[in-house]
Parts: sequence; C-alpha cells; structure tokens
Amino acid sequence: MAGVGAHEVFIEGPDHVTSITELPDDDVASLVGLYRARLLDLKRDRRMKYGIIFKNRGASAGASLSHSHSQLIVLPVVPKTVQDEMTGAEAYYGFRDRCPYCDILAQETEDEQRMVMLTGRVAAICPYASRFPFETWILPRAHASHFESCSDEDVEEMAFVLKRVLRKLEVALHDPAYNFVIHTAPFHEPYQEHYHWHLEIIPRVVQIAGFEWGTGFHINPVAPEEAASFLRQV
Amino acid sequence: MAGVGAHEVFIEGPDHVTSITELPDDDVASLVGLYRARLLDLKRDRRMKYGIIFKNRGASAGASLSHSHSQLIVLPVVPKTVQDEMTGAEAYYGFRDRCPYCDILAQETEDEQRMVMLTGRVAAICPYASRFPFETWILPRAHASHFESCSDEDVEEMAFVLKRVLRKLEVALHDPAYNFVIHTAPFHEPYQEHYHWHLEIIPRVVQIAGFEWGTGFHINPVAPEEAASFLRQV
Repeated sequence: MAGVGAHEVFIEGPDHVTSITELPDDDVASLVGLYRARLLDLKRDRRMKYGIIFKNRGASAGASLSHSHSQLIVLPVVPKTVQDEMTGAEAYYGFRDRCPYCDILAQETEDEQRMVMLTGRVAAICPYASRFPFETWILPRAHASHFESCSDEDVEEMAFVLKRVLRKLEVALHDPAYNFVIHTAPFHEPYQEHYHWHLEIIPRVVQIAGFEWGTGFHINPVAPEEAASFLRQV
Repeated sequence: MAGVGAHEVFIEGPDHVTSITELPDDDVASLVGLYRARLLDLKRDRRMKYGIIFKNRGASAGASLSHSHSQLIVLPVVPKTVQDEMTGAEAYYGFRDRCPYCDILAQETEDEQRMVMLTGRVAAICPYASRFPFETWILPRAHASHFESCSDEDVEEMAFVLKRVLRKLEVALHDPAYNFVIHTAPFHEPYQEHYHWHLEIIPRVVQIAGFEWGTGFHINPVAPEEAASFLRQV
C-alpha cells in the first residue's frame, strides 16, 4: 500500500452559514455535484482505492468549525467497514439474486411505516433495526453501485431530499449534532449488481459507550417507525 | 437464539464516590473479584454465551449517573466485535504458533517505550498503533483466555494496577470521561491457546466522527510512546 491519499474540505457557502438547510436549493445541488466531480477526478489516480465523503456537524459529532462544511478523504485502501458491507450485500445477492438495498426500498415503499420522504428518484427511510435514534438513510430508487456515476437529475433530487431531511431532523431534534457519510462502492470495482450507494445520517443524540465499543451492538431507545412517523409530520 | 440475558450494575461504594480511584485498594480488589464471581455464576446457564463487563465514566462516555459504577451485560450470542478479535488472534497463532498478546507483552516489556506500569503479574501498555489518544490496555502477563479463571492473586494485582492507571489518566488528562471494557473469551469455549483476556481503557478526549463511522479507521493525534511516557511520569 502506498502512503498516498487526499483530504479536501468543502466550504458550503461564502457567508457564515452553519447548516446546509440555510442554502438555496441550487447551492445544495452544486455541492452534491461537486462531491461527484471531485470523486471522478481523484479516482483517475489508480493508487487511490476509496473515497469517503462525510459531514460532521456540531462539536459532539467531531466538528471543529461551525461554518457549514463537509469533507472528502481518499484512501489507498478499501476500509474494512466498507469491505464488510460489500461482503454482506454479496452474500444476500448470492442467496436471493437481488440487491438487498433494492429489496429494502421495495419493502419500505410498500410498507410506508419507515418512509420519511419519497420522490421520483430518491427515498429517505429510517432503516429497520436502526442502530441510532432517528438514523436516516437516503437512497437512489434505481439501482446504482457508485455514487459518482449518478446523473445530473439524480444529483439535483438527492440535494433536494437531503436538504429537506436535514431540516426535518433539525426541527425534530432541536438542531442536533450529526454525521452523514456517503457509502459507495470502491473506485476500481466495476458496476456491482449487489451493492447500492446511499447516504447515512447519524444524529448524535446518544453516546457510544462501553457496551457498544465492546460488542458492536447498539442500544436504540427510539423505534425507527416512531422516528419516521415524527419526521414525516415535521 | 433465545431472547434471554442479564444486566447487572456494580455500585462501587456506599458513599457517593465518583471514581474507583477514591476507593481503598481492598475495595477495588473486591470489585474485580465480584466481576469474576458474577461471570462464574451467570455462565452456568448454558443459554448465556458471552458476558461483557464495562464502565462508562462521565457524560460524554455515556454515563447517566455520577456515583461510581460499572456494568455487566450477558448475551445469548457472541458479539461480532469479539468474534473478529478471536478470529484475528487465531490467524496469528496459526502463522506464528504463539498467542499474539503474549508476543505483544514480550515486545513491550523489552522495548519499554509503550509500557505504563509493570508488576509481577500484570502489565499496562499504550498499544502500538493505538486507536485513541492515551488508550491503555491492562493484561495479565501469564497467558489466560478467560478473565473469570483468574486467581485471587491475579484479581488483587489487576485491581492494584487498574486503580493506579486510572489515577494516572485522571491526572494526565484532567479527569477525562472514559470507558473500559474487559475483553475475554466466550463462556463455553475451552481454554484458548491463541486468545488472552485484557482490559481496554478508552479515554474520551476526541470525538468519533464521520470518517471513523464510515471506515472503521481512527485518527489519533497522540503517539502511544508519548502517551506512555507521560503516564509513567505522573
């Protein structure tokens, strides 16, 4: 493994805004488009294996600056967390011959209980057996393994939903600290039938403590059905 | 898997103490002895597969009470985190024919750079490539896979070192929030040649943020050699 990589910070507005939700829709779309552009550029370097886009908002989510920003770190290795997620999805695909995320989307669209927001191209859900209170995932409804392959229309609708879901979380949880992370397939793997990129939002309303560190299990006092119902209404 | 388990809270003193370090040595030894006794009792139930002993101290480590306490959760399943640690140790054993923790102890005892405290039976180290600033592990020097099999002498010396290491961390980091977790082999596995129980202390001085969630990698701004050197001196 070569000791190379990249770290970039997206400063989300020239004015001192502290949340994406203060930006006009067009600016949020530009930001998501910029995430895509930077990944497409950096993956041209074959030494780079994985790019992770994330946002830390609020001190307890690890943010050291209040000016609204997000980050990109590109690594010369595929992280174990990503590898595990891919392996799990592949095992399900081997069993069902369907992408697990496509199955989740079909189920949640029909069931509606854990659905937060649904547009033509994008769905936001509180996932079944959520690890964290008000954990919310945003997924493209059409199968796609790599975030950076999404179309301009996808980018625009993703941005539209992201801004509104974050606003719902801000209202519901009184402006919580949160992290979001885009989960996407590694740079140089071809289109994956079994993997589906998505964005995970983790509001930081409970602390990770000894039990979670020692087991990897999570204790979540809020059922995702309740969280989704609440978020639909705000 | 049966939906059974246990959750017990150890209240560490009748007076309102907020740290183990305020207790006399004998009381700390009684506490560690009680951890052992409760595991030995609960593992008699064959449905119970794993017992995890942990402490959360301070609000940012997830503690909801300030009166000094620790906890035991017994599960009807071996957690993935534990399974991964066992599998990793077994792979090393298959390669070297030695327990990886025994090798670490031999190296750290000779090298001394990452050693925090060393007694006849117990060692405290800041592990090589620590994930967190001032992460400290306490291990029995003699090979042992199950914490609950330790002798009275082990319990006493473990308690002696634990109290002093926690005190060092309190002084060095100005009374930080922290978690500790005892890592031990699953209840019903026989004595493991490749696994070595130990106690991991994680001071909560940095936040887990989006990068850590998305990758499982950790960014640690304090080299373990510096942390150990500092802890030896306080």
